[in-house]
Amino acid sequence: MIIALDAMGGDLAPDSTVEGAVETVTESDDIKVILVGDEHRIIALLKDKKYPGERISVQHASDVVPMHESPSVALRKRKDSSIAVAVSMVKSGNADAVVSAGHSGVTMAMSLIKIGKIKGVERPAIATIMPSLKDPFVLVDAGANVDCSPQNLLEFGVMGSAYCSALFDRSSPRVAILNIGEEDTKGNELTKAAFKLLKDSNINFTGNIEGKEVYAGETDVVVCDGFLGNITLKISEGLAEAIYKMLKNEISRRFSGILGFLLMKPALKDFKKKTNYAEYGGAPLLGINGTSIISHGRSSPMAIRNAIGVAAKLAGKKLHEIISIEINSKKRGD
Amino acid sequence: MIIALDAMGGDLAPDSTVEGAVETVTESDDIKVILVGDEHRIIALLKDKKYPGERISVQHASDVVPMHESPSVALRKRKDSSIAVAVSMVKSGNADAVVSAGHSGVTMAMSLIKIGKIKGVERPAIATIMPSLKDPFVLVDAGANVDCSPQNLLEFGVMGSAYCSALFDRSSPRVAILNIGEEDTKGNELTKAAFKLLKDSNINFTGNIEGKEVYAGETDVVVCDGFLGNITLKISEGLAEAIYKMLKNEISRRFSGILGFLLMKPALKDFKKKTNYAEYGGAPLLGINGTSIISHGRSSPMAIRNAIGVAAKLAGKKLHEIISIEINSKKRGD
Repeated sequence: MIIALDAMGGDLAPDSTVEGAVETVTESDDIKVILVGDEHRIIALLKDKKYPGERISVQHASDVVPMHESPSVALRKRKDSSIAVAVSMVKSGNADAVVSAGHSGVTMAMSLIKIGKIKGVERPAIATIMPSLKDPFVLVDAGANVDCSPQNLLEFGVMGSAYCSALFDRSSPRVAILNIGEEDTKGNELTKAAFKLLKDSNINFTGNIEGKEVYAGETDVVVCDGFLGNITLKISEGLAEAIYKMLKNEISRRFSGILGFLLMKPALKDFKKKTNYAEYGGAPLLGINGTSIISHGRSSPMAIRNAIGVAAKLAGKKLHEIISIEINSKKRGD
Repeated sequence: MIIALDAMGGDLAPDSTVEGAVETVTESDDIKVILVGDEHRIIALLKDKKYPGERISVQHASDVVPMHESPSVALRKRKDSSIAVAVSMVKSGNADAVVSAGHSGVTMAMSLIKIGKIKGVERPAIATIMPSLKDPFVLVDAGANVDCSPQNLLEFGVMGSAYCSALFDRSSPRVAILNIGEEDTKGNELTKAAFKLLKDSNINFTGNIEGKEVYAGETDVVVCDGFLGNITLKISEGLAEAIYKMLKNEISRRFSGILGFLLMKPALKDFKKKTNYAEYGGAPLLGINGTSIISHGRSSPMAIRNAIGVAAKLAGKKLHEIISIEINSKKRGD
């Protein structure tokens, strides 16, 4: 698999991207990485590193999309930006997948426009991985589409199911709609209409799931509109951080607590690792004719390495072709 | 203040409600509680308790609304249920407020129909209190209205601001819309339109707030539709529980961790207390012509006592009259 990595994308780039690429090719045998961006800076960073040289190459791109720029402006003006060049390599067949930790709206827009939508998909969606008390689950849409139709939610369910199967090798993943009650009569107009469509589809639709149950780990794919998905994701991130801080404060208020905290540190570290986005690397844009992975802006080398791993796995399984078949068979009601 | 308490409402009723009433009148001088429900059971529970007898009375109600019954059926068939009788006492002026930990949909529907909406309010809403790294904040609507208009969100902001002022004695509370970005151009159709309305109101509207920032404690009132509000609430409950379990699991996997956990126990207990809904007692239905407090189904005596305290405070401040003035001045654009 050949992965085009936007070497300039992300808060810690290009250091973290170059390091992530080096770690990738050092640890796996079947992935090649093309570092796309300012070749002088990239080559300078690569100079002192040891790695199998034939599996990293550099593709120069003279420009970088600034973080505050709108996707529409970037699409028009940044034709030689690292992300534009990296996405184009997938379109031209010179790479199997693209990974970027840069401006996520721009990565999404460029992937959508340059690589194109799968026929039959109305709205591509971002699928993100969330931790639970049991196995991790897929949340889709995590923020690509703020206003959605019931038909969009059906597509998210079909695409999320295919993604979950491909990534975790789970057969017939359980798919549920995020809702305010379990009964099919519960919810807003969108979820009530989507319930009917998903019930009639041939994925393993298990009904509605309440917010309180999401982290129990009893479902594989949670479906919602991108507005709700993004807020669910961010609320969870913010709360986990707040809880960690509150615990630390409570502990440091007492002597026995300080001692306890020192003894508990390894456990807390493991816990943080478990809830760390970087473990899962990145989120694919599902519904386009190829593989595009959007990583967190603060991606560490480990997060970049994991995102490249996910990209290689999905491209290797040709997830976009599976989705194309699934979405069109669902639409025909097979 | 006279509070009508639905003595039969809640998973632990009537034990917890009777005990909560007894604790209330023992600890405060200016609250009377009317226990509404099966007088034989209530009197039997009261018999062995010590409390200032003149401040607890019993109002018999022969029926109880079952937890699975729909509000529309309950409204038609349960005229002598404990919740129906308790709400009627507010309507007739025999009580200043009603508190129930029973079926929340039924409490809401009965309060709305019997006590009536404030003129100028289109949709009453549930306002709940959430913890943060600083002071607690108000989330409104927490689940009364699943599909909302921008005008509804404006009302929620005005009512939530008045509630926050009355409950916490905060002047000019900061009000924000829960959204996927801070800029006014971000969000779905609902939040973009609501942003304009709130910006033109005379409450202290501070713009959009992202999910990640909610628990940082930089805002006093978070406004959203009831579908999103309910899911935000439930996701947070579920995640906090999951994190607590994960931590416990990580800790019990190691010996030093077990020791650490024992030493940390007091800190964990304080932390749980801080994030415990019972500390805040209950959520008012804002926008009706009186005070109605919806408590958690699993309310402990402490939660009941706190809910009665909130009811007395809001009724004493005549929050519904303040809301009536505010909502109508906002509408006139004063």
